[in-house]
Formats: sequence, structure tokens, C-alpha cells
Amino acid sequence: MIDVATVLFANDAFYIAFAGGDIEAMDALWADDVPVTCVHPGWNPLVGRDDVMDGWQAILSGEVSPDVRCLNAHARIFGETAVVICFESIGEAYLVATNVFVFEANTWKLAHHQAGPSQEPEQDDEDDTPPARIQ
Amino acid sequence: MIDVATVLFANDAFYIAFAGGDIEAMDALWADDVPVTCVHPGWNPLVGRDDVMDGWQAILSGEVSPDVRCLNAHARIFGETAVVICFESIGEAYLVATNVFVFEANTWKLAHHQAGPSQEPEQDDEDDTPPARIQ
Repeated sequence: MIDVATVLFANDAFYIAFAGGDIEAMDALWADDVPVTCVHPGWNPLVGRDDVMDGWQAILSGEVSPDVRCLNAHARIFGETAVVICFESIGEAYLVATNVFVFEANTWKLAHHQAGPSQEPEQDDEDDTPPARIQ
Repeated sequence: MIDVATVLFANDAFYIAFAGGDIEAMDALWADDVPVTCVHPGWNPLVGRDDVMDGWQAILSGEVSPDVRCLNAHARIFGETAVVICFESIGEAYLVATNVFVFEANTWKLAHHQAGPSQEPEQDDEDDTPPARIQ
């Protein structure tokens, strides 16, 4: 179904896979039918599914799962494309992320992710329950 | 027209307005019919047209126009939404940007921009002529 709740559910699934170091779940979340891209903080962009998944493999293969949480997710839908903006707390640091989803095979799949340094959110939600709103 | 060339043309127009400090051109490039968002490096996200344009006013109101150039733009179209990834050179620094466009009133308008720190592009195009490819 195409609505904000299902987009935010997919966004939550992304952060659950990220925090859990679950490369299989992460792989399943990314689109198969469109070219995908990913920009990790300070990295050059990764273009194409192989490079994007190699990047996640490198990030998620550590012994300790990333201490990442999604905060204040905010979704907009444009046709069968959705753009989510959210904060990421990673340890003591805050990032802000753009996550672009496409509706593929009746579900939302990631087509693009960019995260970069941010200030602390002005209002830091204690959970990531949708619908939350940025700031 | 919905094709990669017209998306990259709109992306070029964005960087021409940015580099030229042209707030009127910048204003005209942003969507009117959908909610817009903008994430400048290290800033919290700006949500809504008023805050987004106030941000650009602050950035573009300096006496010296920003020395910004777009490099290696790469566009993908999903229905009536397009996602451009490109490098930005600003002085000696490099950023990477996600620019999301929506097709509105028969033209591409910006719905979202995020820029964050990057490494130097591996292959630094000397111009921004489409179609260029990231890295």
C-alpha cells in the first residue's frame, strides 16, 4: 500500500537491519529493478547494487553492531517514489539522512541513501514510532 | 519533457543560481505544489518552503557569490520524480549532494536537497555537461 505509514515502516526496517548488522535483511531492502546509490558520510558515492551492498557488507561485518537509531522520520510520497528524511544517532554523534524509496513488487524498496553530519535534533524523539516529524 | 537531459538541465540551473547568488532564480527552481526540504552541511533539516528559502537567503546574501561548481552529475528518473547525485566543489572542499526533483507544471522543480562532506571525486570532470556519471 502506498501511504506514509508503509514508507515509514520500510524506513524502520532499514534501521533495524542496520542496527542489527543483518546483511541479508539489508540486501532484501534495496531495490532490484532500478539502479541504486548510497552515500555514507565522507565516502564517495556508491553506484550500483554490487558496490552498494559491498559497502554495507564492510559496515555491518564488524563484531559490534552499529549503535544506530532513527529519530524524527519525516516522509513524503511523490507518485510511486517516497523521500524520507530522518536523524540518525550513532553513539554520541548525529547524522541526517535522506532515504529514497521506490514502490517495487508491491513494497517499498530503497533506491538511495545519503547520510551526513548534523547537529543534534532540537526535539529528540525517544522512539522512532511513525508518524514523527523532523525537528 | 521527462528525460535525463531535462533533469540535468534543471540541476545545472540550480548550481548556476547557487553560484550566481541569484535568490530569485533559486526561488523559482523550488517546487510550489509539494512540501520541500533542504539539508545544508552541518545544519538541521529545513522543512517547508519558507524555511528553505530563508536558508538560501542566508547563504546567498553574502557579498561574494559562493564558488560552487557541480561535477559528475548522475540522474535517475522514477515516474515523475528524479534523483540527481553530484559532487559540489566549493573552494578547496568537496561535497556530495542528493537533489530530488518533481515534475510540476511541465518542468522539473526541486523538492529536496542534501549536501554533505565528501572525498574528492576520483575523476573530476572539468565541466558539468550531461550526461556525466558519478566517479
